[in-house]
Amino acid sequence: MGFRATPRVRSLHSFPGITVAQIDEEVAKLLQLKAQIGGDDGKHQFVLKTAKGTRDYNPKQMAIREKVFSTIIGCFKRHGAETIDTPVFELKETLTGKYGEDSKLIYDLKDQGGELLSLRYDLTVPFARYLAMNKITNIKRYHIAKVYRRDNPAMTRGRYREFYQCDFDIAGQYDAMIPDAECLKIVHEILSGLDLGDFRIKVNDRRILDGMFAVCGVPDDKFRTICSTVDKLDKMPWEDVRKEMVNEKGLSEEAADQIGEYVSLQGGMDLAERLLQDQKMSQSKQACAGLSDIKLLFSYLQLFQATDKVVFDLSLARGLDYYTGIIYEAVLTQAGVATVSTEAQNGAEESVSVGSVAGGGRYDGLVGMFDPKGRKVPCVGVSIGIERIFSIMEQKAEAAAEKVRTTEVQVMVASAQKNLLEERLQLVSELWNAGIKAEVMYKKNPKLLSQLQHCEESGIPLVAILGEQELKDGVVKLRVVASREEVQWRDVNSSIRRERR
Amino acid sequence: MGFRATPRVRSLHSFPGITVAQIDEEVAKLLQLKAQIGGDDGKHQFVLKTAKGTRDYNPKQMAIREKVFSTIIGCFKRHGAETIDTPVFELKETLTGKYGEDSKLIYDLKDQGGELLSLRYDLTVPFARYLAMNKITNIKRYHIAKVYRRDNPAMTRGRYREFYQCDFDIAGQYDAMIPDAECLKIVHEILSGLDLGDFRIKVNDRRILDGMFAVCGVPDDKFRTICSTVDKLDKMPWEDVRKEMVNEKGLSEEAADQIGEYVSLQGGMDLAERLLQDQKMSQSKQACAGLSDIKLLFSYLQLFQATDKVVFDLSLARGLDYYTGIIYEAVLTQAGVATVSTEAQNGAEESVSVGSVAGGGRYDGLVGMFDPKGRKVPCVGVSIGIERIFSIMEQKAEAAAEKVRTTEVQVMVASAQKNLLEERLQLVSELWNAGIKAEVMYKKNPKLLSQLQHCEESGIPLVAILGEQELKDGVVKLRVVASREEVQWRDVNSSIRRERR
Repeated sequence: MGFRATPRVRSLHSFPGITVAQIDEEVAKLLQLKAQIGGDDGKHQFVLKTAKGTRDYNPKQMAIREKVFSTIIGCFKRHGAETIDTPVFELKETLTGKYGEDSKLIYDLKDQGGELLSLRYDLTVPFARYLAMNKITNIKRYHIAKVYRRDNPAMTRGRYREFYQCDFDIAGQYDAMIPDAECLKIVHEILSGLDLGDFRIKVNDRRILDGMFAVCGVPDDKFRTICSTVDKLDKMPWEDVRKEMVNEKGLSEEAADQIGEYVSLQGGMDLAERLLQDQKMSQSKQACAGLSDIKLLFSYLQLFQATDKVVFDLSLARGLDYYTGIIYEAVLTQAGVATVSTEAQNGAEESVSVGSVAGGGRYDGLVGMFDPKGRKVPCVGVSIGIERIFSIMEQKAEAAAEKVRTTEVQVMVASAQKNLLEERLQLVSELWNAGIKAEVMYKKNPKLLSQLQHCEESGIPLVAILGEQELKDGVVKLRVVASREEVQWRDVNSSIRRERR
Repeated sequence: MGFRATPRVRSLHSFPGITVAQIDEEVAKLLQLKAQIGGDDGKHQFVLKTAKGTRDYNPKQMAIREKVFSTIIGCFKRHGAETIDTPVFELKETLTGKYGEDSKLIYDLKDQGGELLSLRYDLTVPFARYLAMNKITNIKRYHIAKVYRRDNPAMTRGRYREFYQCDFDIAGQYDAMIPDAECLKIVHEILSGLDLGDFRIKVNDRRILDGMFAVCGVPDDKFRTICSTVDKLDKMPWEDVRKEMVNEKGLSEEAADQIGEYVSLQGGMDLAERLLQDQKMSQSKQACAGLSDIKLLFSYLQLFQATDKVVFDLSLARGLDYYTGIIYEAVLTQAGVATVSTEAQNGAEESVSVGSVAGGGRYDGLVGMFDPKGRKVPCVGVSIGIERIFSIMEQKAEAAAEKVRTTEVQVMVASAQKNLLEERLQLVSELWNAGIKAEVMYKKNPKLLSQLQHCEESGIPLVAILGEQELKDGVVKLRVVASREEVQWRDVNSSIRRERR
């Protein structure tokens, strides 16, 4: 197949002001050529796998997933949340300008004619788009769905390119810190309910961070970049963070050291009180507003009996641009549970922290970015790091050598002799009609042993055993699989006697 | 911004045997250029919408969706099914060659480097890929997830580009027609359970169709195309179908007329019996095998008490290539429920049929297409047309002017006077901790009327009303919203008295 470069090249030459339509045509030609050459170089053999960074869930994993979801959804419903769903892809421009540097991780769909689309990167931006599009000014909703990031996957640590997010948000103009406190209460309830071991919820406020940067002498245009360096404090020691600030980001040593003093502080309401009196910090109006709100938050958390796990931590600086007020992040503190064993690239076993398991904050400006008139809808929300929780639960189930049931079958309809298929089918149908979860083997003449083995393997507690004698007597033998205890079941089977009336 | 064509053009010229990597680079450059020019020509204004053919689900729609899912999942679990999940995208080549002409409807992801990916088109191909990849030879599983087709959307009829599929499949080497009969029993249970009005389940067999084509004198290479014409019989009268066969597909008039006689036949086990004796049909071994299985199927369906809705219909010819044995399709027959009113483009009201609400069949060859050694895993399954069911349920809810509750809140914690925020927060927290679904307004001093209105609007049955006097007396007033009946609640509130111990 010859490569006809000439016409394409000419057309590009003759239109220095090339149009989008022409580019599309060029791209289509090149991609067609690529398809002719045969896709990725040398990879002509079909590979049986899932896409990089994704996984199937097998029935056991699904059983764990369902259990975790049911705890979480139970909590969201207890707090009166509604739920919504949005499409897996959005117009590309809906996502544009919302994720800063991370935008390069967005999956785009191929331009097959029509709209330019991207897979959703989180659930927060689609939520804000939904509110603006439907002019909704208050709602309390949860949304559990998969999101997509072309990130470097670390699947043993629960980091995938396709993963669940599990978000709860409260939108609306309300009195300060009441919905914010409820979000923290929800994190507290969920992490307690999932029984993942001890945890801490760190809280801080965007305004305190910004105020702190201002009073420490960070130039305005460096707030963001210094903030993202502070964000690394949970992975790097202070010395390295300081070095990055001074050497890479060009901050003065003095400013860096002042920041260093503040970000080492942790406490509760008392710390907020102290910082309100702090000579330097109290010069920032922003910081004071944030500190007063932290005080108010703690007073509400006391009423919610949730202060035991909450720490005001000035080093907490979440990456996302859209936060405007309080921010928080929950981490597991019990090392034994918080680590997941993984195979490092060199094959050695490595124990790594699963990191934060929930996070969120207040974002009062995001909805306004979508509203044609810029009308703001204040929002606060939390996202549960469900994939990490799955990893921990799977590991726990494996460690405990627990038998995870993947079906809920209560009765297996079996036969002890041959030629009882019709009777088995009839009985199992009666059970189904009565709402009983029941199974039958899809064989004409299965062996009793293999029917019993199936019960043992899949944890079915009861077997109904049909036999010629029992049919004549109008009874069914019911056996408890675990104890082998047997009873006769009288009434049910009048209709499945051999001699029908 | 200047367009630097020269270096790119030169590199293409000097490599007539261009590599994929080079094409990728060229494409990336062109697309970057496109981005600089500014995306689609002239479409610079941001549009607040979801992608074409997709929709958000609002809380009311989600409430209906959850109800439908719970009926369906309940049935799947009653029949002992496990569940799995697969990624939303697959390697492009996993989907290649599975959908015939419909492949053009597959959504591809943009080539951003790495693997070539496509959004799943159904759940059956990923299921077969999953079985082959994990060497699973028997499983009974359901899978409910969204699939993607770049089809012409008709959203008022429940046809979207992103839509749910709801599949139940039994894989494994079993005795004939037992799992097949269970699939039909499941359709019967689900459609009865959803209370959608009367329905029919049409059954036929790929082998009967093929045998019929053979004995009617259709040339082998025309089986597929004639089959897809027969498939149109539910939308077109026989005369038009005949015309298409003769004029467009070049079939002889005689053959067409013979087919016409057969496809007008409908019946039950008796029809299968009669066709087994039919002089022409009985010449085809394939047809006879199919007819015997239909007889067997009906005998099992009798045991399942499901024959009332099942019709053996020789005109049923489902489009998909991968079916190898029995096929079936369920349709709603009660016109009043089976139609959904829609706005036609000219603004006039139009009533359209929602068509089939479930379909499936046996596909014994698909898993083998993925297995490196071609090992076959026989499968039979059914897909519930959930989007059409949603459309009908939504319409029914609207027609009945039913109030659909979107939360499950049981108690609203309210106050009759000012300055009782703390007491409200404390009581609602106690209720949450006790597992009671409760809400509180996020205002310091909400009016009692607006608290009661919220209850009416969202269907909350009870209000706990706090007041100074009640707090002193150590009681909470509990009001039934509907009847305004009030009781005093004594024990709960010892801890929220004003004077704490």
